[in-house]
Amino acid sequence: MLAMEELAAPKIDRGPLGDLPPSLEWVGSADGVLRLIDQTLLPDRLETRDCRTIEDAWEAIRTLRVRGAPAIGVAAAYGLCLGLRSARAGNRASFEQKLREASEYLFTCRPTAVNLAWAVKRVAAVGAAHVTTGPEVAWAAMLSESHRMFAEDAETCKRIGEVGAHLIPDGGTVLTHCNAGSLATVAYGTALALCYIARSQGRRFRVFADETRPLLQGARLTAFELQRVGIDVTVICDSAAASLMARRMIDVVVVGADRIAANGDTANKIGTYGLAVNARHHRVPFYVAAPGSTFDHALRSGAAIPIEQRPADELADGFVRRVIPVDVACCNPAFDVTPAELISGLVTEKGLLEPVTEGGIAEIFG
Amino acid sequence: MLAMEELAAPKIDRGPLGDLPPSLEWVGSADGVLRLIDQTLLPDRLETRDCRTIEDAWEAIRTLRVRGAPAIGVAAAYGLCLGLRSARAGNRASFEQKLREASEYLFTCRPTAVNLAWAVKRVAAVGAAHVTTGPEVAWAAMLSESHRMFAEDAETCKRIGEVGAHLIPDGGTVLTHCNAGSLATVAYGTALALCYIARSQGRRFRVFADETRPLLQGARLTAFELQRVGIDVTVICDSAAASLMARRMIDVVVVGADRIAANGDTANKIGTYGLAVNARHHRVPFYVAAPGSTFDHALRSGAAIPIEQRPADELADGFVRRVIPVDVACCNPAFDVTPAELISGLVTEKGLLEPVTEGGIAEIFG
Repeated sequence: MLAMEELAAPKIDRGPLGDLPPSLEWVGSADGVLRLIDQTLLPDRLETRDCRTIEDAWEAIRTLRVRGAPAIGVAAAYGLCLGLRSARAGNRASFEQKLREASEYLFTCRPTAVNLAWAVKRVAAVGAAHVTTGPEVAWAAMLSESHRMFAEDAETCKRIGEVGAHLIPDGGTVLTHCNAGSLATVAYGTALALCYIARSQGRRFRVFADETRPLLQGARLTAFELQRVGIDVTVICDSAAASLMARRMIDVVVVGADRIAANGDTANKIGTYGLAVNARHHRVPFYVAAPGSTFDHALRSGAAIPIEQRPADELADGFVRRVIPVDVACCNPAFDVTPAELISGLVTEKGLLEPVTEGGIAEIFG
Repeated sequence: MLAMEELAAPKIDRGPLGDLPPSLEWVGSADGVLRLIDQTLLPDRLETRDCRTIEDAWEAIRTLRVRGAPAIGVAAAYGLCLGLRSARAGNRASFEQKLREASEYLFTCRPTAVNLAWAVKRVAAVGAAHVTTGPEVAWAAMLSESHRMFAEDAETCKRIGEVGAHLIPDGGTVLTHCNAGSLATVAYGTALALCYIARSQGRRFRVFADETRPLLQGARLTAFELQRVGIDVTVICDSAAASLMARRMIDVVVVGADRIAANGDTANKIGTYGLAVNARHHRVPFYVAAPGSTFDHALRSGAAIPIEQRPADELADGFVRRVIPVDVACCNPAFDVTPAELISGLVTEKGLLEPVTEGGIAEIFG
């Protein structure tokens, strides 16, 4: 059986935002909590929030206190540990039962990011494999696996940055959409990892951040991260991106991903697709940066990716003052799908895949 | 000399929003005021505001209490009358001097919409032509000319609707950007005039309204108008439009215009251009609806159209709560230019021009 002190979170390379609290971390050992930055409060307030139960974790993911596919995955892994903590004292059957229920419960909190299901299944499998030795050991193994995932995520993201940093031109400009940065992962980010590594290699460049309606992750979070690290960032309306491209003010577009189908079709924050169409029209390279956990090899194409519809209120009165007349319908899809043919390359921890083909993806991750 | 009672505003066909206060109107005769709906308060409150001085009118246009190229033109015409009212009592030289100063002053309030300069010049020319008979007569002629412009705008917009209504398919869906409706004109609107006339012809259809960041004219104003008239309207994030097109949920895009160059390149609300690129990619027809006063025949192409940069605060904290970190740069162009080659047709009061060519424009308006 694992000693309790072995259940503390591993030390990791926190990357460019190392002076801030981590986007999420396990604090303590077996009796610990999942502590995360409440991203809904940024940029006004930088505050952390402790999740002590699986319901706390579910709520934090659902309400976007923690968001970004990789961060959601790790948060859900720890959430599963929180959900099973009290079952350690029970018998094997009740632990197994609880493990199934808790997994199913977590699957419901957000539908599009595949990392969530991937992480929950991975930790649940470890629990199921160890439960013959007893619930206590199984639970310890689950927490240990979650810690591994936590450390891996930071390493993977750093690697993505190293793989793709050369795509950021010295003296050039980068456009990104939503927040695929440190806050969306354990550290470094995916799309922004390219910027952070390019910066550490001495390159100077300018980033345009789409504000990213309706929840403004670009305005609130990407601008916050980049400003903190001292990278020149300018926020634009999502709809201004095309005009900047027309004026040759954008050298490269880099975005993250919530789920990538076997053929490379990529679900990401709503607006990514229209941006890719515009990038193609203007012959601006368009890259997707994502870890292996974001690939869903079971899906042949993007058409099968479920798209989360978020509450109309996010559009109607997300900003204190209501901006849409009462009783007017809102259509609020949170994501869209960009076909592989519009993506110049996929930047992953295993390398840069350019052009994007089903065979290439299978080869890298097969 | 004109009798004072002849200086009251003409009765006009107020169109589909006839039960509301007009977007703008002259109330009273020679001692009247320019009364306008304060559109910054919509959809929360429907309130009118009286402009008694040229400075009031300038402020109302600058701060978007009244907006939309045609409405701005008429408001500026009345604003010029307000500015010259006290000069009626003076001599010819001082009237002429004041006329030049007031015109220059109004030109500064918004740079992109050509209607503003067009309207001010037209009314100023009438004043200049009559001043030999005396300032009192010149001023009365200016107010009378403004009234003519007011009535013409409503007629022109209705005609635009009649010219283009057949483009709105029965049972289909229309996408529009910003507000090119009754509120942007004296009555009927430009892009929305097509919807209103199609509706009056018995066609049923659905409108998707881009919310139109940063000032949300789509969410606040287009949704307000269409809901009021009973047309099925759904608000979307600007960035969701491409995905709806990919899912074949949009049959036609119709937008208004702030300025159209001789070759058909069209400046309109920021985001229009990216939408046109996406419409082309998805083979969705893309129409611009605008009156003759929006054409600037002196400009060969869109490259010469001045693009207004609006305050960063509109992006940073336009919604009570600040959403962009302090000291992060914002780039906030209010308009973009859509090249003629991306526009399926121009809907004007003189007819539908399809395809859009410089020769065709010259022929219609020459």
